[in-house]
Amino acid sequence: MSQIGTQSIQFDEAPYILSAASIVGKKEGEGPLGDLFDVVGGDDLFGADNWEAAESTLQKEAAVLALGKAKVTKEQVRYIFAGDLLGQSIASTFGLMDLSIPLFGLYGACSTAGESLSLAAMAVAAGYGDPVLAVTSSHFASAEKQFRFPLEYANQRPLSATWTVTGGGAFLLGRKPGSVKITGITTGKVVDYGIKDSMNMGAAMAPAACDTIYRNLVDFKRKPEDYDQIITGDLGYVGQSILFDLLKEKGFDITRQHRDCGIEIYDGKTQDTHSGGSGCGCSAVTLSACFLPQMERGSLRRILFVPTGALLSTVSFHEGMTIPGIAHAVVIERA
Amino acid sequence: MSQIGTQSIQFDEAPYILSAASIVGKKEGEGPLGDLFDVVGGDDLFGADNWEAAESTLQKEAAVLALGKAKVTKEQVRYIFAGDLLGQSIASTFGLMDLSIPLFGLYGACSTAGESLSLAAMAVAAGYGDPVLAVTSSHFASAEKQFRFPLEYANQRPLSATWTVTGGGAFLLGRKPGSVKITGITTGKVVDYGIKDSMNMGAAMAPAACDTIYRNLVDFKRKPEDYDQIITGDLGYVGQSILFDLLKEKGFDITRQHRDCGIEIYDGKTQDTHSGGSGCGCSAVTLSACFLPQMERGSLRRILFVPTGALLSTVSFHEGMTIPGIAHAVVIERA
Repeated sequence: MSQIGTQSIQFDEAPYILSAASIVGKKEGEGPLGDLFDVVGGDDLFGADNWEAAESTLQKEAAVLALGKAKVTKEQVRYIFAGDLLGQSIASTFGLMDLSIPLFGLYGACSTAGESLSLAAMAVAAGYGDPVLAVTSSHFASAEKQFRFPLEYANQRPLSATWTVTGGGAFLLGRKPGSVKITGITTGKVVDYGIKDSMNMGAAMAPAACDTIYRNLVDFKRKPEDYDQIITGDLGYVGQSILFDLLKEKGFDITRQHRDCGIEIYDGKTQDTHSGGSGCGCSAVTLSACFLPQMERGSLRRILFVPTGALLSTVSFHEGMTIPGIAHAVVIERA
Repeated sequence: MSQIGTQSIQFDEAPYILSAASIVGKKEGEGPLGDLFDVVGGDDLFGADNWEAAESTLQKEAAVLALGKAKVTKEQVRYIFAGDLLGQSIASTFGLMDLSIPLFGLYGACSTAGESLSLAAMAVAAGYGDPVLAVTSSHFASAEKQFRFPLEYANQRPLSATWTVTGGGAFLLGRKPGSVKITGITTGKVVDYGIKDSMNMGAAMAPAACDTIYRNLVDFKRKPEDYDQIITGDLGYVGQSILFDLLKEKGFDITRQHRDCGIEIYDGKTQDTHSGGSGCGCSAVTLSACFLPQMERGSLRRILFVPTGALLSTVSFHEGMTIPGIAHAVVIERA
């Protein structure tokens, strides 16, 4: 039996991450992690005619890169678990269509990298598929168009706002032994603290991150120091400080272990990204390019990867609804 | 090992459908299946202030009804697999938030009922959760606003257009033996025949339905007559005739077994619904209210349930993209 605690799974036969790939835009390439990504685009259109098609290219290229690294053909892949931020997930649809692989479309806002890795790991561990792909993306310009303002407005952004990462990340999971495996997951609930400011996503997502991290520690009977790092997706500086406060109220201090992909990916001082990076792609490309290589080298042995999502649309926002959050945690260990 | 053929699973320990529930709007209540639904709303707002909140109510009420029928509390449910048609799946988020159950958010357009049942069945069969919920919804007015025109325009609809069903359906799956079980699934690929007319979704989805049904028959080594019925989600009259033609080209005649939830749910002659019903809710409420009771009574013993989705958004449509389809098949048998 692999259920553990009230909302976690510990895999009896942990699936391996056979390969991972990242492709990012120009700004991400100029950031602190720039040299680590597999592909950095020269402009953010990636040869496409519009921003949505550009994001589809990110999905496809990341998937193809991950397949290539593992020397696996698309015909060998049993399932893709994929999602993005756009309405009706069109980046995934048009990006992955040509691969012609059975697709489970997901929506978990910026937590989608955690959701897709969770479901992909569940499928492999249960013997439903081997290998399977988990793919996620976001694009600064398609997200601004979808959620905020047309770029042409050139509107000002408050300091609490995050910058949507242009990037696609793909992970190939399977049973063939490798150096990194997914040993467990903690699936998040929707958590609503009543935040209504779409320019402060960190505050909207921090309570969900707290809830999932707390539940993971309790379910697995672990302390923060049992993880080399606890890595949230895109809380940014504002969300990080809220997360620290909320977890301290529950008796856990993660200040030493905590990293946030949104903080890692840009240089906040020089890149004008305010609270940090965000988007499904943010956590996916940072895991792929920055953290997994450290696990392969052995400098990290066990991490908790916790992508965080803010659940809103322009319709819900304009109807005065709150912005609830959700976070899905994945335990990744060196084999 | 439960993998079968190239894209199907046959469950070694088939999960049971412990309960199912349906809630629909006024028009659906006036249709041929009107007496079969658990709840028929007096108006389509269901006590909410706007159409999106009304759709959230459908999600919540369907889930709560299904729990009540099975005498299961929300605290006992391990996961919800849920989705809807709205951008960023806000109907699911706000509808299911208060249940406080770990959530996997899905997007498969109108195929979501098949996708959610598939993943829920996979989770139960693998021992990851018991019981788990699969919930889907659609709402005529929120969908028109999302995909087509504001209702106030009162624009004309071509005869190939479908009418989005106002309805929410929920299914509770678990290991406790009951009278109906899910014995297998066939997960669909994205199939693009180049259709660009968003008023002809049946044509856009029929090739995907054909692909998934064909693959199911081949993977399970079955003939159409091995199923009492093969039930698509919302092809409507136009899509049905295309599906028949496409499957005949592949050597299969399903004209005797075929039903379509979009055709069943409205009276095409008197309800002005043109090609038929559509939406995630269409297949979910029809399965729950019409087909599952026939299985419980024993008048149906094995069906193939194949919800079909059209993968588009207003953005992709206006950018001139095609409308690809996807279909996810679920094999349901009397225990």
